[in-house]
Amino acid sequence: MKAYQEMTREELLQEKELLETDFSQIKARNLSLDMSRGKPSAEQLDLSMGILDVLDSKSILKSEDGTDCRNYGVLEGIPEARRLMAGMFRCDPERVLIFGNSSLNIMYDQIARGMYSGFCGNEPWCYQGKIKFLCPVPGYDRHFAITEHFGIEMISVPMYDDGPDMDMIEMYVNNNPFIKGIWCVPKYSNPQGVTYSDDVVRRFAALEPAAKDFRIFWDNAYLVHDLYEDKREDLLDIFEEAKKLGHEDMIFEFCSMSKVTFPGSGISAMATSRANQKDILDQMKIQTIGYDKIKQLRHAKFFGDINGVYAHMAKHADIIRPKFEMLEQLFSEEIGPRGIGTWGSPLGGYFITFETMEGCAKEVVSKCREAGVTLTPAGAPFPYGIDPKDSVIRIAPTYPSVEELKTAAEVFVTVVRLISVGKLIENSF
Amino acid sequence: MKAYQEMTREELLQEKELLETDFSQIKARNLSLDMSRGKPSAEQLDLSMGILDVLDSKSILKSEDGTDCRNYGVLEGIPEARRLMAGMFRCDPERVLIFGNSSLNIMYDQIARGMYSGFCGNEPWCYQGKIKFLCPVPGYDRHFAITEHFGIEMISVPMYDDGPDMDMIEMYVNNNPFIKGIWCVPKYSNPQGVTYSDDVVRRFAALEPAAKDFRIFWDNAYLVHDLYEDKREDLLDIFEEAKKLGHEDMIFEFCSMSKVTFPGSGISAMATSRANQKDILDQMKIQTIGYDKIKQLRHAKFFGDINGVYAHMAKHADIIRPKFEMLEQLFSEEIGPRGIGTWGSPLGGYFITFETMEGCAKEVVSKCREAGVTLTPAGAPFPYGIDPKDSVIRIAPTYPSVEELKTAAEVFVTVVRLISVGKLIENSF
Repeated sequence: MKAYQEMTREELLQEKELLETDFSQIKARNLSLDMSRGKPSAEQLDLSMGILDVLDSKSILKSEDGTDCRNYGVLEGIPEARRLMAGMFRCDPERVLIFGNSSLNIMYDQIARGMYSGFCGNEPWCYQGKIKFLCPVPGYDRHFAITEHFGIEMISVPMYDDGPDMDMIEMYVNNNPFIKGIWCVPKYSNPQGVTYSDDVVRRFAALEPAAKDFRIFWDNAYLVHDLYEDKREDLLDIFEEAKKLGHEDMIFEFCSMSKVTFPGSGISAMATSRANQKDILDQMKIQTIGYDKIKQLRHAKFFGDINGVYAHMAKHADIIRPKFEMLEQLFSEEIGPRGIGTWGSPLGGYFITFETMEGCAKEVVSKCREAGVTLTPAGAPFPYGIDPKDSVIRIAPTYPSVEELKTAAEVFVTVVRLISVGKLIENSF
Repeated sequence: MKAYQEMTREELLQEKELLETDFSQIKARNLSLDMSRGKPSAEQLDLSMGILDVLDSKSILKSEDGTDCRNYGVLEGIPEARRLMAGMFRCDPERVLIFGNSSLNIMYDQIARGMYSGFCGNEPWCYQGKIKFLCPVPGYDRHFAITEHFGIEMISVPMYDDGPDMDMIEMYVNNNPFIKGIWCVPKYSNPQGVTYSDDVVRRFAALEPAAKDFRIFWDNAYLVHDLYEDKREDLLDIFEEAKKLGHEDMIFEFCSMSKVTFPGSGISAMATSRANQKDILDQMKIQTIGYDKIKQLRHAKFFGDINGVYAHMAKHADIIRPKFEMLEQLFSEEIGPRGIGTWGSPLGGYFITFETMEGCAKEVVSKCREAGVTLTPAGAPFPYGIDPKDSVIRIAPTYPSVEELKTAAEVFVTVVRLISVGKLIENSF
């Protein structure tokens, strides 16, 4: 198999003609496939059905400290739920607050608190001029949507194999008081699947922000979402590192059960310092009387402890691993040798990042849609939706069945070839 | 029995001595009783245990439109939950959005939207100067806490037997563009138990606000919380009235299942116009991917339809009615003839409002606490916690057992007598 870059113009034109025929045949199949969102498949959801059986009308719905979970109260969450989520964070349960069904909603509320109430006695961000967030890119589109919604300026920071560009982050954070935060998905990052190295985590913990109210939004969304039990990537605990330096107030860590039990019907949690917790609870008590304790109890009973979670996640991994491996194999066979794209090979998380030749991503996504295959819009993993190289495509392999995914991926490969060959012909004039 | 006002100074002093002895004996009992918060009792919570049995691991967790309730999505709520909550509001399901576990949280978010995003294209409130809310008083302390938190000035409006002072409301709303909202609990109001008359509801619907972004926060918290099936107070549907005048965008109506099934583990809802819904959903999609659909399904299955809710609420009423009646009887016997207080006799809701002689409420609450009986802090039902007459005490009879409530109420009566007699002696100098 010949790399496209090594083909003559004639060879390229010939290849294009063949691919256009293929594409016409694909279109004629009227496919409707989706590789756009990080959703578990029905088969994965089936794994958690047992959680519906752990409580029934005969159950005593008391938490271990005797609280009746059926009534109002307990803003911080019941002890067993705090302990369970602390097991996921691998931190002290005292550091954990339990919230509603969505960690995204905690992050949204947390940004709103920074904007309009201010953190720990600091002036609200909204009165401090044009504040900014750092955004490692590519990153999670919903993070960027929140900062954009609140009118916070976003600055892109490149991601490498071991995490974001720490030189750049230190330069910004330690010198510019308008930098108020950074979005991080430190383990199996969305979308690259990169886990931050120990050195990167230590450098985060050692930041000396120019702004007293700078916060790291450590969205540990995939903290137990390993694909391989024997190749689990360990993320250093940023709190332990920060503690050594007295920097604990700088960190908000988030996670949820959304991709563990049921998306939308899980529980979410935040780990942070005592000072931040007090700050949050003082405001949360205005907002709500408390979150759903029966659901907290349900999760605690279903898993028992963190080992229950790991055992459960191994079953998820068994279902989704073949999907990741199938894509890996297909790309290795069809894309690599042709030199028309690169891709990550993550050991966990929910995504594969594919990079086309420069200037091809939008066309690939649009052409796939024409063929009935939905992908995340090109540009989505970037602030303001702008990918400067127009090359990043986030692939979400979990939701379709292996068969559907294979079909969708084959369409994708054909389209990448077609668009790439077109681009090379264009450039050859 | 003689009214205290008719007693001579000597008689008052003698009465005081007797009451002080009584109080000492009460104190010696080391009671610990609570009439402070509107919480259902354990007996009431037991009524809803069946909701834990309607779903189990064998269930198909699909909504009637085929949505898998176990996965992400459906921001507005599943159809059967919207229909169920519409039955409670008595409105078209299309008007209803389903949220998380707390209507208080919807209201908080809704005020935040007004403040920082603005409603339906209007400038955010926070840029419009010193905006104000009208607050019928006494009212719900948590409403006032929200407006205070956001720095919104509160103006008290007197409540009468048929609702708030509409002349005053019309004067403010129709002339002052800084008036942006009003808090209403239109049925079995917190704390008086007053239901707004048809005339009052019509006058609300007919408001012609000076501010285009004025909104009525219609917190219909007790919409199905009748104490007597044969003396149910009907609240006119404000939407129907507003529709006739093209005023639908003015109304946000809220309710929840918190005092129907389990506080904190219910679902909450909002009814509003199509324009407002669009406005809300446009922002909500930044905040969350969706609320808990399994819980929505659970509620829909447990109740079937609104008739299921009414049948369920009748059981709640059977449990709490004797508590309200016991207090009514005790006050009629011990307070009325002595002329030292008045109280409401609500036909639903969760509270009784007791009014002491002027200047006695704080002392009564404090003295009760000394005797081990917790009451809502005096002043709490007023903006900024200030009751100008220091006379209103909110009594929450539902949580304690009838026996506990009786003991607590007897302590309360003794304390009211003691403080009143003291005040009269003081005044007699």
